[in-house]
Amino acid sequence: MKIIRTIQDMKQSIEHYRDLKKQIGFVPTMGFLHEGHLNLMREATKENDVVVASIFINPLQFGPNEDFERYPKDEQADTLHAEKAGVDVLFMPTVTEMYPKPMLMQMRIKGRTDVLCGRSRPGHFDGVLTVLTKLFHIISPDKVYFGLKDAQQTAVVDALIDDFNFPIELVGLPTVREANGLAKSSRNVHLTKQERNEAAWLYKGLQQGQQLIRNGEHYPDNIIHLVTKTIEQHISGKIDYVELLSYPSLEFVSSIDQQVILATAVHFDKARLIDNLILDNYGEIITRYN
Amino acid sequence: MKIIRTIQDMKQSIEHYRDLKKQIGFVPTMGFLHEGHLNLMREATKENDVVVASIFINPLQFGPNEDFERYPKDEQADTLHAEKAGVDVLFMPTVTEMYPKPMLMQMRIKGRTDVLCGRSRPGHFDGVLTVLTKLFHIISPDKVYFGLKDAQQTAVVDALIDDFNFPIELVGLPTVREANGLAKSSRNVHLTKQERNEAAWLYKGLQQGQQLIRNGEHYPDNIIHLVTKTIEQHISGKIDYVELLSYPSLEFVSSIDQQVILATAVHFDKARLIDNLILDNYGEIITRYN
Repeated sequence: MKIIRTIQDMKQSIEHYRDLKKQIGFVPTMGFLHEGHLNLMREATKENDVVVASIFINPLQFGPNEDFERYPKDEQADTLHAEKAGVDVLFMPTVTEMYPKPMLMQMRIKGRTDVLCGRSRPGHFDGVLTVLTKLFHIISPDKVYFGLKDAQQTAVVDALIDDFNFPIELVGLPTVREANGLAKSSRNVHLTKQERNEAAWLYKGLQQGQQLIRNGEHYPDNIIHLVTKTIEQHISGKIDYVELLSYPSLEFVSSIDQQVILATAVHFDKARLIDNLILDNYGEIITRYN
Repeated sequence: MKIIRTIQDMKQSIEHYRDLKKQIGFVPTMGFLHEGHLNLMREATKENDVVVASIFINPLQFGPNEDFERYPKDEQADTLHAEKAGVDVLFMPTVTEMYPKPMLMQMRIKGRTDVLCGRSRPGHFDGVLTVLTKLFHIISPDKVYFGLKDAQQTAVVDALIDDFNFPIELVGLPTVREANGLAKSSRNVHLTKQERNEAAWLYKGLQQGQQLIRNGEHYPDNIIHLVTKTIEQHISGKIDYVELLSYPSLEFVSSIDQQVILATAVHFDKARLIDNLILDNYGEIITRYN
């Protein structure tokens, strides 16, 4: 596995692969890789000739009171994991390499962000879109892979690619979970043992909502109510939201008659966790989005 | 010359050229082609294997009271001119093809636009940047060509490419002029014969400013004053601005000690014309920007 730290070297490497007519898959991450990331990487190796992964903790997508400074890092472990997952090139630029001077350009999204995490993290997705636009131009991938745990991010990137005609195919893959159902997340390291057990109830709560839909419940309010009650009863943390929206357009629905997302976010003492299910109108889970 | 009207066909055509490892030059225009455009196209044929030109009157870059509806068109003449200039592919999408639904994404630029035309055309450059981002992704050019008559546009595209790491080289080429010095522009058709004669004084006024710099004048105010007075004395139209700024950063300067732009815009009865000179600190004209 090649490790590249500068944009110039990365572009040169891509040019080389382009000359050889290699199809390039790209997995952007913020590092501290877990099974969720590695699953994306392994899947990318199956569908592409070359897999590029990036590790970049993007300051632009963190709010002033968020966890940029203490976002977990482990370059050595990440390198080993990525190599084992079949990554060909690991791109790890510094902040100065990516943002050598203040940006004049601003990328914004008008929809899909006044709900879910977008509401509690103003500017977050603009930062995500900005760094992805840069990475897409540096790496020119044919396909890009995201975990559906970050479902709102996937919906937002879908709009980016579609509106701006990026010649890139978006692939969203299902959330990878611990044995108890807890969604894998780099932020899970900040949980106490007690919280880690409780956090499994995010998934269990969502599953109870899913079961309601399977049983024919059509009214979002009833589903949201049940999920909220279930999670509340089992965790010491504080619920940020439980929402049910159309997916990927992320609009409020009055009835379950299309693909939807049932999502939640919970604040624990040192970590804010998210989880979701993307469901068709019969309540069955969507396992690949593109 | 191939004429292409859909994004899908255009992408397919580009893929074909990419497979053949052709270098692609791109000349984006709004049509009603004149010598200025054709000069860009001819130059592009010299430096690339394949030249793609686009004709698209982009509604997003026109303000509500601007001339979108009556922007001049002549598809037949344009086709002949482009072919003669050596264009290989002419891309002429409809508005619905480029904007099939309202955009969720917004592209903005924070600097370089509160001066010159940006001040009197709020949102104009955001519209330019949006359509260019789309066109750059559809056409994936190696080089893109702009006329330095639209110097502010070139400066803004320079920021777009730089901030977002587009793998594209920007080339700015000098303004092409009528025998009397009037800068070629599609909007010149809206001038009366009298106005067309008067309009030559935009250039003559700027040249007088240039001469002052050559003679050692360092103070922008003195230069701006002379240019304003000269133009005012010879035209029936109304001056929108005469400005002298650093180039391409477009910031006010207190002394001529770097590359600058001396620029003007004038409202005539049915057309607003612009002209400029880009000068080094000795007052000599910059003939190629990249």
